[in-house]
Amino acid sequence: MTQATLAYAAPSAKAPLAPFSLERRAPGPKDVLIEITHCGVCHSDLHQAREDWGPALFPMVPGHEIVGHVTAVGAEVSQYKIGDRVGVGCMVDSCRTCSQCDAGEEQFCERGFSGTYNGYEQDGRTMTFGGYSQRITVDEAFVVRVPDAMPLDRAAPLLCAGITTYSPLKRFGAGPGKRVAVMGLGGLGHVGVRIARAMGAEVTVISTTEAKRGDAAALGAHDFLASRDREAMKAAAGRFDLILDTVSAPHDLNAALNLLRTDGTLVLVGVPEEALPVQPFAIIGRRRRLAGSLIGGIAETQEMLDFCAEHGVLADIETIAMADINHAWERLLKNDVRYRFVIDMASLGGSAG
Amino acid sequence: MTQATLAYAAPSAKAPLAPFSLERRAPGPKDVLIEITHCGVCHSDLHQAREDWGPALFPMVPGHEIVGHVTAVGAEVSQYKIGDRVGVGCMVDSCRTCSQCDAGEEQFCERGFSGTYNGYEQDGRTMTFGGYSQRITVDEAFVVRVPDAMPLDRAAPLLCAGITTYSPLKRFGAGPGKRVAVMGLGGLGHVGVRIARAMGAEVTVISTTEAKRGDAAALGAHDFLASRDREAMKAAAGRFDLILDTVSAPHDLNAALNLLRTDGTLVLVGVPEEALPVQPFAIIGRRRRLAGSLIGGIAETQEMLDFCAEHGVLADIETIAMADINHAWERLLKNDVRYRFVIDMASLGGSAG
Repeated sequence: MTQATLAYAAPSAKAPLAPFSLERRAPGPKDVLIEITHCGVCHSDLHQAREDWGPALFPMVPGHEIVGHVTAVGAEVSQYKIGDRVGVGCMVDSCRTCSQCDAGEEQFCERGFSGTYNGYEQDGRTMTFGGYSQRITVDEAFVVRVPDAMPLDRAAPLLCAGITTYSPLKRFGAGPGKRVAVMGLGGLGHVGVRIARAMGAEVTVISTTEAKRGDAAALGAHDFLASRDREAMKAAAGRFDLILDTVSAPHDLNAALNLLRTDGTLVLVGVPEEALPVQPFAIIGRRRRLAGSLIGGIAETQEMLDFCAEHGVLADIETIAMADINHAWERLLKNDVRYRFVIDMASLGGSAG
Repeated sequence: MTQATLAYAAPSAKAPLAPFSLERRAPGPKDVLIEITHCGVCHSDLHQAREDWGPALFPMVPGHEIVGHVTAVGAEVSQYKIGDRVGVGCMVDSCRTCSQCDAGEEQFCERGFSGTYNGYEQDGRTMTFGGYSQRITVDEAFVVRVPDAMPLDRAAPLLCAGITTYSPLKRFGAGPGKRVAVMGLGGLGHVGVRIARAMGAEVTVISTTEAKRGDAAALGAHDFLASRDREAMKAAAGRFDLILDTVSAPHDLNAALNLLRTDGTLVLVGVPEEALPVQPFAIIGRRRRLAGSLIGGIAETQEMLDFCAEHGVLADIETIAMADINHAWERLLKNDVRYRFVIDMASLGGSAG
């Protein structure tokens, strides 16, 4: 039996979000039905709903930082049972047969993963709807377990912001003896600082002005660098092994690349809408690398949650009601949130079933 | 006793090269004096003499693809003797004490290496003059041996073009089972194709038009891709593990990045004068990397020469007289050379001593 589900949707590009009803599929043999308690509000929710990144699918129910409880399981589900605390991130399925899926890198599925919203199921026809809703039906292979130590609300943003920062920090070698800079102290950046610190790296926050120096220290950063301070930027040339660039606004990549030591890497995880000019000498002179990274695989997402639970890493959140979402998006556009809005899904009202 | 030496120099930025006299220092205890038989003509000779890359030092005697014979050695020279066939590349000295020099990466010397021309010796005052000249005095630590199997004239370009392509091909994993593309079939590219092939990689040449398809095959490339052929470029998306980008003109980096598979790397070794726009999604979507690479260390340069000798890798050259240099530079600007001009230094006339 399908599940009538209340949600909020953007009816068309750039239109405000409004109440919306949808049907979740009845759990198949390998599906779990999740009653959503909280959903984080990611900057990419806005980008997609406003078609900043290109044509999108409407009506759109955003949300890919989903946590909640299992309320039903299919007959063949082996990993989860009713009552379990679980999460769903940016993907709800992939082909599961290509070399990338085999390697646990479903985010690079050669046939394209099924995005949690603004996408299609693997049948190529059924639209997906995200976490700004009461419940969701997902194959257990794309569900992760939220460790008991974590409060659900502060864990929600880790499903995107956590894996987006954890994966490149691990892959590009953040750890003891390494100098890591996190550029941009927003939803991604503040989690990135905590994860890099937990990995044992020496962590510096790079932000445009001095305004966030105190916050950076409170999050565990060892140092702070204001990118508009030319003298400080000059003095920091060649300093970092790794820069995690979480800035989604246009910014000067060459000034940042100049902060890398020989063989250092700057990883883009924020997604500016426009191309960023790279000066050839900025990378040639010290054999630097500019890389991109996109979330992480499902197993790696579980690993990230377990790591964060072990090290006490959580997101700093501001809880909102579903009905406040349009106002929250306006504030998000102004970076007016420390550091992640999380929707309390109880605010959507009682069961629609 | 200093050595009076005939040369060709650019008296000022953008002025034609003209005959010039200079004094080479008398060999110190660790110096070797090299009678130059040939010097390759590198695109960066023009860039520097025309100040394309910023202010330069004049008069400028270009040339950093130097080969010749040892004609005198200092008392403490241990590696070379009179009559040896030797080469000098882009560097004639470095601090020799920093961590980069210790690691054999003199090109990244923290205090700055001494360029073979358009630079200063480590005293910071004595200008360096390059290989468009009869002879040069160089510390033996910055001299490499040209294997007996190699003709000097065709070996000369390897001192820059060879190491510039060998180092990143090796570092970024060119070898059996890897698909390597070489973008641009000029002085760097044609050597890069041969080296990548010798390393055992599957090699594709990427050039703007079909014009060089035959040359690519003759150089040993397995395949050819015309970058202006949209259909072919689309079909090649995600195909390469490594792209060696030797193009020094402005070009579309995003189209090239799109040819990389997940975790693939595009290495810039050509140096366009202007910034190249990078679309964030071009690297984020498949966790691709854009890297730069700058020549290689001295020991690695020797390793490259030995590798090339073992595998029969040489440059294809057009030999010119010193007096033809201005005409050659004009042709080089039009890419009208297959594939490297090499100056026969005997054309400079007899001994000036």
